[in-house]
Amino acid sequence: MRDFSADHTALALNTASLGHNVEGAGAGWSPEQVIDACAARGFGGIVFWRREIGNRAIKIGDRVRAAGMQVVGLCRTPYLVGSGTPPKLEAEVWQSIDMAAELGAPVLTIVTGGTEPGTKGVIETQKLLVDRLAGFAEYAARQNVALALEPLNPMFGGNRTCVFTVAEALAICDRVGATNLGVAVDVYHVWWDSRLTESLRAAKGRILGYHLCDWLENTRDMLLDRGMMGDGIADLRTIRAAVEGAGYDGACEVEIFSAENWWKRDPAEVLDVMVSHFRACC
Amino acid sequence: MRDFSADHTALALNTASLGHNVEGAGAGWSPEQVIDACAARGFGGIVFWRREIGNRAIKIGDRVRAAGMQVVGLCRTPYLVGSGTPPKLEAEVWQSIDMAAELGAPVLTIVTGGTEPGTKGVIETQKLLVDRLAGFAEYAARQNVALALEPLNPMFGGNRTCVFTVAEALAICDRVGATNLGVAVDVYHVWWDSRLTESLRAAKGRILGYHLCDWLENTRDMLLDRGMMGDGIADLRTIRAAVEGAGYDGACEVEIFSAENWWKRDPAEVLDVMVSHFRACC
Repeated sequence: MRDFSADHTALALNTASLGHNVEGAGAGWSPEQVIDACAARGFGGIVFWRREIGNRAIKIGDRVRAAGMQVVGLCRTPYLVGSGTPPKLEAEVWQSIDMAAELGAPVLTIVTGGTEPGTKGVIETQKLLVDRLAGFAEYAARQNVALALEPLNPMFGGNRTCVFTVAEALAICDRVGATNLGVAVDVYHVWWDSRLTESLRAAKGRILGYHLCDWLENTRDMLLDRGMMGDGIADLRTIRAAVEGAGYDGACEVEIFSAENWWKRDPAEVLDVMVSHFRACC
Repeated sequence: MRDFSADHTALALNTASLGHNVEGAGAGWSPEQVIDACAARGFGGIVFWRREIGNRAIKIGDRVRAAGMQVVGLCRTPYLVGSGTPPKLEAEVWQSIDMAAELGAPVLTIVTGGTEPGTKGVIETQKLLVDRLAGFAEYAARQNVALALEPLNPMFGGNRTCVFTVAEALAICDRVGATNLGVAVDVYHVWWDSRLTESLRAAKGRILGYHLCDWLENTRDMLLDRGMMGDGIADLRTIRAAVEGAGYDGACEVEIFSAENWWKRDPAEVLDVMVSHFRACC
């Protein structure tokens, strides 16, 4: 297991932590400001959201690398299933894959979307998901982009996801059978799962992203009350040991949706706290 | 599988559906009003919360039976672990067991409480839970009361539970090894679990309660936005088939926490809708 106590080159910022992915949230820093602030603090990489990139993917990607960091990934495809899928789904997914390629992001994250209208549970929805993933994985492979299927906490069933655990995400990947499809492991979504260590063992070579934050003991909001690493009850070291045991040696991406706390602070302070907590608690 | 389309004698009201378990919520009907309204509509039973019973357990239990129904269960023990446990835990658990016995409720539900202060994850907490359950199950056995361990949706990790799936609840029961300890299956908490059918198969003879509501596609509140059966996306019939496949032939208890919808309606209307949706959707 890597020792981060005096080395945070594996630390990556997911810009959601500064509120950038929600209209009107956060300090509104430009990608350039974020890049400079991360580089100044020795971050290893950044993960952007599509809405920040617009048509400047190549320029922003180049700027990250010129600052000595990597574009670790791009968030995310539109929902692929459920009532939240966009009208022109295929075109929008292709665009998101193209954007990842232009940014130089090796990984595009997938949040699946929820239960298909007119159906119950998730079994029918997962069938459709498998079909669609197969097509999109093929397109992504041509662009040299990998797709990371992210299981979400079961509270996001219904409208946001139909995949709830690492085991379930791996089963979906097996059914699709594409070499550029793997899983993203986010401690917020999986910390509670007593089968997690076992599931991650089966994820050998298929973990495409590791997302950090913490689960606050008294979570007040489903979506926007994530904690800074160390402030909650997730067993971060045990989870990372299992993730690295599965061969993952990539970036650790901090993604903290926090409308009432971290998004209200100066981004410079948030980034400083992130570095110190990453070294101390992760 | 039982046919409820023209028979709702298996239907039980959990009084939480009328807002009774939260201070200031609901219409504030007395237990007697609830009993009369349920009996008038042909309900088979009622599940009360401790706060409604006070020192009138024997009287209320007798009144339910005199009205031709059963007291199906009592909600619930205080938290047994985590920072929300009461100062005099043992005495309060004993009191709740005594109350169930006096009511004539065969089952007392357990919501475990969350992660122990000073620990991470749930493994240490579950060890403590197993120890405490062993002692309380022994006390309950002497009172002829069964304890139903209820796994909660993973969104309630941290401060409300350390048991998230039916499989995990059964594993805890195995470790305790008490014949009067089983599980409660609530569709709100377990609908998303793709291992549910398999887990319920292993629950043969150990299901002590089956709780109904629905998971709304767009759930707006973690705690108080449950749906009426049929209004959401849980696959209620498939779940009940698995529950009955495990030998459960008891009451189906409707428990709908719904601050912004059902708790604002006339309880008489809520009960009428409950009967018709139970027959049509469950």
